[in-house]
Amino acid sequence: MPFNKFAAMLVFAFAIMHFNFHNAWAADPLPSWNESASKKAIIAFVERVTEQGAADFVPPSERIAVFDNDGTLWPENPVPFQAAFAFDQIRKKASADSNLAADPMVQAALSGDVKKLLDGPHHDGLMHVLALTHSGMTNSEFQQSVEQWLANTRHPKLDRRYDDLTYLPMQELLEYLRANGFKTYIVSGGGADFMRVWSERVYGIPPEQVIGSHAKTKFEMRDSGPVLIKTMDHLFVDDKDGKPVGIHQFIGRRPIACFGNSDGDKAMLEYTTINNPRPSMGLIVHHTDAAREYAYDSAPKSSGKLIEALNDAPKRGWLVVDMEKDWNKVWK
Amino acid sequence: MPFNKFAAMLVFAFAIMHFNFHNAWAADPLPSWNESASKKAIIAFVERVTEQGAADFVPPSERIAVFDNDGTLWPENPVPFQAAFAFDQIRKKASADSNLAADPMVQAALSGDVKKLLDGPHHDGLMHVLALTHSGMTNSEFQQSVEQWLANTRHPKLDRRYDDLTYLPMQELLEYLRANGFKTYIVSGGGADFMRVWSERVYGIPPEQVIGSHAKTKFEMRDSGPVLIKTMDHLFVDDKDGKPVGIHQFIGRRPIACFGNSDGDKAMLEYTTINNPRPSMGLIVHHTDAAREYAYDSAPKSSGKLIEALNDAPKRGWLVVDMEKDWNKVWK
Repeated sequence: MPFNKFAAMLVFAFAIMHFNFHNAWAADPLPSWNESASKKAIIAFVERVTEQGAADFVPPSERIAVFDNDGTLWPENPVPFQAAFAFDQIRKKASADSNLAADPMVQAALSGDVKKLLDGPHHDGLMHVLALTHSGMTNSEFQQSVEQWLANTRHPKLDRRYDDLTYLPMQELLEYLRANGFKTYIVSGGGADFMRVWSERVYGIPPEQVIGSHAKTKFEMRDSGPVLIKTMDHLFVDDKDGKPVGIHQFIGRRPIACFGNSDGDKAMLEYTTINNPRPSMGLIVHHTDAAREYAYDSAPKSSGKLIEALNDAPKRGWLVVDMEKDWNKVWK
Repeated sequence: MPFNKFAAMLVFAFAIMHFNFHNAWAADPLPSWNESASKKAIIAFVERVTEQGAADFVPPSERIAVFDNDGTLWPENPVPFQAAFAFDQIRKKASADSNLAADPMVQAALSGDVKKLLDGPHHDGLMHVLALTHSGMTNSEFQQSVEQWLANTRHPKLDRRYDDLTYLPMQELLEYLRANGFKTYIVSGGGADFMRVWSERVYGIPPEQVIGSHAKTKFEMRDSGPVLIKTMDHLFVDDKDGKPVGIHQFIGRRPIACFGNSDGDKAMLEYTTINNPRPSMGLIVHHTDAAREYAYDSAPKSSGKLIEALNDAPKRGWLVVDMEKDWNKVWK
């Protein structure tokens, strides 16, 4: 019968659709993660907040996930990658400027005395070197210098381009969250202008979802058109207590998922997970893998100290990911 | 024949789809706009940048549109609405605090001496009053006070709730741009925390797309959980040259469409339209409608002075919208 034939075709069409649909869901969204408690907890959380009609359902507009960058999405050893960029830039500049070469913090940078640069609660020496290498140019000029550096520099131990050193399991996590309606943000002590050069290409995170340390630019109308000059005025350091402050300033609502790796992320883990009216998740990447990456927590080579947040993790319910045991692959 | 019957059904189904599709496009997206040159230019611009494969096509991620708020999306007379909120708050506070009542700027606020408050390039008096009414509380407490005020206050001339006073033609424009893949942002001298309370409900603009004047909050862990306390530290005034600076800080790329109404918007109009490698559009809302709203430009009652930007409009190619002639309706 004509109608039956049509109905059969429809059934067949729906069967194909359903098969594909089912397959998409059945595929492992986190293949580089071993079947650990962490992986199960991540998936359980995502399923819980996305189940339409359930009590814990969170509307997509409120599915905000914030990720630290250095040590969470890519390494921060032997020094944070932006510090490596700054040292390379300052080496160039100091070779042409004897006053600059005489600056004690410049000398610390050139001799690799990271301890001296990171001294003090706000890493004043590093900030000074950042100022020398991150201000006085237009934003486009700065962008070009970052691109050029990335294209021509390799990591000393891991021997890859720096932007080819993101953790594959975290990339999968970013994608998995976005596929479930989350908006993924970077919230990093690193410079916003530095990260925005490559964040969209490398992480699929557009510039407007990158929150980082920043200072005011200065608007100027030149013959060539309007430009923004980078300055160090009104510096905002997006670290420690600055992270929830930056999140409020840029996003204006509380995240429901937060990913970090150091005590610098403790305040944003607290802001995300303590007495949040929405269900929430906090996760700490614990660097335990000396063979494939680095192993450190309380005594890192440069930045990335993890003592307090690790100590608080059990009482706060934060997941602690053991890089060595929980990840079957680290790199793409 | 069975096959023919099935084919006929398919043709019929596609015909319905096409009919709806065609209708959706044929419907006027800006019904409150008269068929003026401005309206035609807006539509021509949107069609130009969204035509796949054409030379001027702009990928959706770069379709950033920025809107001033006061005087562009809603009125700023007789005083900016946030100033009205601040005056009402300070009246409450001064009645309980004689020191506060003796403050000359508080007296100016209470007597409605807007000129005194707006004196100087950065409206220092107004800023002082804003500080008194916009800091010292948690962000949630502030949010509640804004909601409460909006629910209980009406505009003195237009006799509606303030949040019911948005310009219908601009609301249509916001929707039209979003329907064409634009991301719509507010970039306003108003306070980010003030606008974010209602921006999503009133404009469909989520808090993370609201750029405004702001200061640092202070993170505190209380027994009740983490809170952010509003302060006036690190104040950023998102006006004049601060607008492109704020756009860079929050979005990190140049907009391709910019909508303003005063000289405070000139810098962001320049930043959007001068030597932008992408096609771009600038538009100025000119307040010419004393009967339905207000008529002013060079000599506004309080804020909203429009001299230089209006003067530059022809040479910059900025559209100037005549509220009286170009809009057949102002309010919903």
